[in-house]
Amino acid sequence: MWKKRNERIGYQGWRQIKIKQFELPNGKLADYDILSSSSYVTVAAFTQNREAILIRQFRPGPERELLSFCEGAIDTGEEPIEAARRELREETGYEAEKIIFLKKRNSAYTDQWQYFFLATNCQLKGEPQLDEGEFLTHEVMSIDALRKRLLDPEEDTFNNIAAAYLALERLKMC
Amino acid sequence: MWKKRNERIGYQGWRQIKIKQFELPNGKLADYDILSSSSYVTVAAFTQNREAILIRQFRPGPERELLSFCEGAIDTGEEPIEAARRELREETGYEAEKIIFLKKRNSAYTDQWQYFFLATNCQLKGEPQLDEGEFLTHEVMSIDALRKRLLDPEEDTFNNIAAAYLALERLKMC
Repeated sequence: MWKKRNERIGYQGWRQIKIKQFELPNGKLADYDILSSSSYVTVAAFTQNREAILIRQFRPGPERELLSFCEGAIDTGEEPIEAARRELREETGYEAEKIIFLKKRNSAYTDQWQYFFLATNCQLKGEPQLDEGEFLTHEVMSIDALRKRLLDPEEDTFNNIAAAYLALERLKMC
Repeated sequence: MWKKRNERIGYQGWRQIKIKQFELPNGKLADYDILSSSSYVTVAAFTQNREAILIRQFRPGPERELLSFCEGAIDTGEEPIEAARRELREETGYEAEKIIFLKKRNSAYTDQWQYFFLATNCQLKGEPQLDEGEFLTHEVMSIDALRKRLLDPEEDTFNNIAAAYLALERLKMC
């Protein structure tokens, strides 16, 4: 059994690091730096023609452009499904007929949840409403092309692999 | 176009935060906290009976036990595929007949790569060799049971969804 003995803020900038101290099963104490962030949604959205709606955006971590589904932090007091609807509308201008919860997951060294949603029969309803400092473009891609990317070991630009597979598997059942 | 103007260390503990300053496409300057870590491998490993080899481990981020494939940091100078072989041997005692590169990916706010490998026909060759402070157990699970977990929206304990789908898709082709 692990027992938490202490927790303090190690770093506070645009992101926060919490230092959590645990008593390990062997009785020793160990500190872990945990990235502390809002939980967020990943929205695997598809048009009425079943094309994937993707975002192309420069990313400051790897310092290159990545292709992804819409993603964004859940606001305080907001339901995850509402965050999914809002992020899709803000980042792409699309609205979904139906939004379906697929799954949620944790990772080892963060305290956030990632929620996966499938958005179907999306229609373009207006212009994206981007935050200041947000620079992205959206594009659509056929499901065949998306599948091909997932299967190609050399393809490393699209980074929502889990969301894509969960959505494609669910779409078969719709 | 984003232009990097500055980079400095914002936090150095068990993890490191780099503060990267970019000139944005609108000419403004913005700082981003980037989690700076070693690249790592995720090893979707299967026994000769095609059972998935999984790790159960308490995780200090979400403060609960998660189920995952073997994962671990790539050592300096080590090839990703060697890290995959080593982590599998150390964490579980299994050795693979064949290790196949599936894909690699970046995420938006880290500077690391995640490499996905498929390890097939694994055989138990000895005891795990765990690092001090590493407390984990391994278990095997049928592919059917793994698929069922992936498809269940309420299942949120297994967190290597991308690796599982990439591996299952590849296994069909073996």
